[in-house]
Amino acid sequence: MSFEVTILGSSSATPIYQRHPTAQVLQVHERFFLVDCGEGTLIQLNRYQIKFHRINHIFISHLHGDHYLGLMGLLSTMHLQGRKTELHVFGPAALWEIIEVQLRHSQTELRYPIRFQAVNPDVPTVLYEDETLRVTTILLSHRIPCTGFLFEEQPKPRKIIKDKLAEYAIPLESYASLKAGEDLVLEDGRVVLNAELTTAPPPTRRYAYCSDTIYDERLVDIVKGVDLLYHESTFLHELADRAAETFHSTARQAATIAKKSGVKRLIIGHFSARYKSLYPLLEEAKEVFDNTTLAMEGDRFSIEG
Amino acid sequence: MSFEVTILGSSSATPIYQRHPTAQVLQVHERFFLVDCGEGTLIQLNRYQIKFHRINHIFISHLHGDHYLGLMGLLSTMHLQGRKTELHVFGPAALWEIIEVQLRHSQTELRYPIRFQAVNPDVPTVLYEDETLRVTTILLSHRIPCTGFLFEEQPKPRKIIKDKLAEYAIPLESYASLKAGEDLVLEDGRVVLNAELTTAPPPTRRYAYCSDTIYDERLVDIVKGVDLLYHESTFLHELADRAAETFHSTARQAATIAKKSGVKRLIIGHFSARYKSLYPLLEEAKEVFDNTTLAMEGDRFSIEG
Repeated sequence: MSFEVTILGSSSATPIYQRHPTAQVLQVHERFFLVDCGEGTLIQLNRYQIKFHRINHIFISHLHGDHYLGLMGLLSTMHLQGRKTELHVFGPAALWEIIEVQLRHSQTELRYPIRFQAVNPDVPTVLYEDETLRVTTILLSHRIPCTGFLFEEQPKPRKIIKDKLAEYAIPLESYASLKAGEDLVLEDGRVVLNAELTTAPPPTRRYAYCSDTIYDERLVDIVKGVDLLYHESTFLHELADRAAETFHSTARQAATIAKKSGVKRLIIGHFSARYKSLYPLLEEAKEVFDNTTLAMEGDRFSIEG
Repeated sequence: MSFEVTILGSSSATPIYQRHPTAQVLQVHERFFLVDCGEGTLIQLNRYQIKFHRINHIFISHLHGDHYLGLMGLLSTMHLQGRKTELHVFGPAALWEIIEVQLRHSQTELRYPIRFQAVNPDVPTVLYEDETLRVTTILLSHRIPCTGFLFEEQPKPRKIIKDKLAEYAIPLESYASLKAGEDLVLEDGRVVLNAELTTAPPPTRRYAYCSDTIYDERLVDIVKGVDLLYHESTFLHELADRAAETFHSTARQAATIAKKSGVKRLIIGHFSARYKSLYPLLEEAKEVFDNTTLAMEGDRFSIEG
């Protein structure tokens, strides 16, 4: 089952050098989740051949324009292309006001239902859950209310050891309880411990998306050990004061969070317009946490299952 | 003095095939006027190396997203780049509400003043006037209130015939009145007619921008004889019914307006996403009005003075 992040944009507020503002798509199996939606997201989806009509869930981290200004164009194009499927949008409460005023003045009645859920920026919340995935907010500290998102696979079933099926003549109706970790009770009343019959499930994959945030060590526990961490990295550390002042992070700080939380891989993004070349940011991060990659448009990060 | 239109985008509501929605820049001498501002305008300005900080006047035709969704990103980037110069924005009254709600929720206080002027969609109005240019609204008939814009050079002074300066010993202080068309009164009281002393001024250049509109022959008188007419051309004429239903025009209809009004050159744009190749639209228009060009991104249309 695929679990893959595609970078659509990674510029901070000023798009420059043909870099687009923040947007990503997470594909989990056949589901597509859009994470932030900066201006130009629709054209980026087209460019990277991701069918926008397959997106049913959109998560907006906060109301700075570089994270949401592509949303109205996307909603409007879905409408014009005849979408009927319900669309779920998660974001700050005021996002709905912004959507509604623009629909009203363009006299647009969307042909599909939008289910908008206001995100509470102060309490970690499960926003979405199905049989394979759970999405929870990550509280971030930025100039305005802002949340990241933690995408976690649901715990997977344990695997039954094939040889044991014959050995204990395990009936089909016991498979589910064994996969769920229960012990086996034989017909004669003997109990076989689950650990003898099954192996541990494959680990659940986790992706943590931390958009705009000041350096905040409270994140360490929340993203501990994730397979993939996206952490903003607006500045080089020589501008650490500027980062703190604007509630952003430096490349070194992003890498420090990655290191302290023992993640497997770090992606840095949200680059300031002052950096034409991004390699100094990458180098700075790698000094602290080697498995770091720049969020480049079109790049895909797949987590093996 | 330059008088030049640059096409930044010419797609209709659905950007596709890497075409961007409607936006243009008119450069008159050293002034830059932005005409509509679809999503991605800022990145297009960068791509075609037009310095956005030189834009002091923005004209928005109507509140369908493909004509204004790039505005917030542009306003915000001007702010972040330290703009101090006043910016004039002309558009439907509700545009201010849309701007204001987004500034409020992003907690942005712009560092430069915006002078917003609501455009009356029912009465032709002079929106802007300086010593070289006048901008007037063109009333259009679309699904929601919509205006085009007529950019006209101010009448230029007549030219004094050099030989006449000596012949009549014309004093310096009479130059202005002669250029303005007045007759010359000699010291002995005789009157020399202006027509003997001057030649007609060079013609004033005119550009008419007609964004979304149904086929409307009332336009013929308004754009009569302009040097350059931009007229939307969303569909081929085989979809004339669809055009009428959505208050858009076909290529043949755009060309018919151009022919009836005797303009010098026609640009067609606002192409439906259904047309991957635009040449059928061009061919159809050329059958009626030969001097037609497609609005292609990056194309520049200069009117010689």
